[in-house]
Amino acid sequence: MNDPTRTLTAADHFYQVLFSRRDVRGQFLPDPIDPHILARVLTAAHHAPSVGLSQPWNFIVVRDAAVKARVQCAFELAHAAEAQQFEGERRDAYCRLKLAGIADAPLNLLITCDRERGGPVVLGKTRQPDTDIYSTVCAVQNLWLAARAEDLGLGWVSIIEPEALREIFRLPDAVVPVAYVCLGHVSYFYDEPELQAKGWARRASLNSLVFNECWGERDDADPLRAALEAVESGAGLHGESP
Amino acid sequence: MNDPTRTLTAADHFYQVLFSRRDVRGQFLPDPIDPHILARVLTAAHHAPSVGLSQPWNFIVVRDAAVKARVQCAFELAHAAEAQQFEGERRDAYCRLKLAGIADAPLNLLITCDRERGGPVVLGKTRQPDTDIYSTVCAVQNLWLAARAEDLGLGWVSIIEPEALREIFRLPDAVVPVAYVCLGHVSYFYDEPELQAKGWARRASLNSLVFNECWGERDDADPLRAALEAVESGAGLHGESP
Repeated sequence: MNDPTRTLTAADHFYQVLFSRRDVRGQFLPDPIDPHILARVLTAAHHAPSVGLSQPWNFIVVRDAAVKARVQCAFELAHAAEAQQFEGERRDAYCRLKLAGIADAPLNLLITCDRERGGPVVLGKTRQPDTDIYSTVCAVQNLWLAARAEDLGLGWVSIIEPEALREIFRLPDAVVPVAYVCLGHVSYFYDEPELQAKGWARRASLNSLVFNECWGERDDADPLRAALEAVESGAGLHGESP
Repeated sequence: MNDPTRTLTAADHFYQVLFSRRDVRGQFLPDPIDPHILARVLTAAHHAPSVGLSQPWNFIVVRDAAVKARVQCAFELAHAAEAQQFEGERRDAYCRLKLAGIADAPLNLLITCDRERGGPVVLGKTRQPDTDIYSTVCAVQNLWLAARAEDLGLGWVSIIEPEALREIFRLPDAVVPVAYVCLGHVSYFYDEPELQAKGWARRASLNSLVFNECWGERDDADPLRAALEAVESGAGLHGESP
C-alpha cells in the first residue's frame, strides 16, 4: 500500500485513519471545535453496535472550566496513588509522562452506560450481562476513530476513580462511567503510540497473539501465518510502521 | 455529503465504512477469506488502543467444523434459555430471528483478554481495573470496521455462556472470553440495523442522549444542539439514513 504511484482506495483511506489514531495527552490546542464536526463525531459514536440495539450510552459534554477543574483534581489524586505502585526508575519515568489534557483540551466528554437501558431483558445480554458496557466501549472507539478522521485528537483518561466521576456528574445509580476523554485540535500526532515513542512499552508481535482452534495452539501451515509475517515486516500499513 | 456531484474526501470514505457496518447473522457465503485480507483485518484489531499499551488480546481462529459444532451447541442451549425470558408475542418474534451464523460463516474468531498481560501494575489500569477488557473491546470494534472496509460481514454472538467458551477453547484462568464473532463474505448488507429492519427495536434520537456539564442537564443554547438536529434530519450520512 506504500507504493506512491498507486491510487488510494476507500479501504486505504479507512486504514489510514485507523492506523494513525493516537491517544493524545500533550498536544491539544485551545481552538474550539466546530459544532458540526462535533455532531458528526458523536453521530459516529451513536452508530456503534449495541447489544439488542439497546444503545445504552449517554454523552456528557464538558466545556466549563470549573467542572474540568474538579475532574483534574480527581485525576491528580489518582495519579499520585498510581505513581506509588511503581518503583525506582519506573516511577520516575511514570512521573515524567504527561497523562491527561483535561484543562488543555477545549472539550471533554464523559461517556456512560445505563445498565437498565432496554428494560429487564435485553436480547443478547442475558448470558453475558456486561455486553452493555462493551457496546458503550464500541461507541467510544467509533468516536475516537471519527475524531481522527476529522483531524481531532482524543485522549482516554482512565487514571480517575470511577466514584469521583459519579459524584462530579451526579450519575444515577444504574449509570456507570465508562470513559472520560479529552477532545480537541492538536499541534501534531505522534507517528507511533506515545508510550512506545517514550520507551515505556513496545507493540507486541501480532503473529504470537494468534492461535488456531484452541488456546495456545499454532498451525504453522496456516497461510495466515505468512500473511501476518508480511504485514509485520512492513509490506503495507498507512500512518505507522507496523 | 449526499450531493452526488461532490468528490468524496478521505473522511467521507471513513464514515461510509462506519455507517454501513452491520451485525451480520444470516447472509454469510461459504467462500474462504483470503489470508492477506484476514491478516489486514487482524492487524487493524491489533492497532486498537490499549491501557498502558498492554495489548491484552489474543485471537483464536476457528475453521474446524467440529469446534464450530461445539460452539453451535453452546449457542443453542443459551438461546433456548434466553427465549424463556421473553413472553408471548415477544418470544415468538425472538424465535423467528436468526441470531448467529456460526456454521455458515467460513471463519469464527474468539477474542480474549489476558487479565495479567503487562504485569501486576499497568499504567492507567490501577483505578479502573476493567480497562484491559475495554481495550479488548476496542480491538473487536477495529476488527469489525476493518472487515466492513474489506466488504466482509461480521456478527458478534453474545448468546453463549462464557464458561462454555472457556471450556471449549481451554482458556487459562487469567484469560476471559470477550467476543465470539463470525466472519465471512456476505450476499448483502442491510441498509439499517437488522433488529430495526425486523421491528425488534429502533435507533434512539442522539440529541436526547447528550447532556451538558452534568447528568440530565441540557443547554438548548449550545450550538451543538442545532448541529445534531441537522444530522438527525438527514443532512449527511453515508450508508444509512440517520
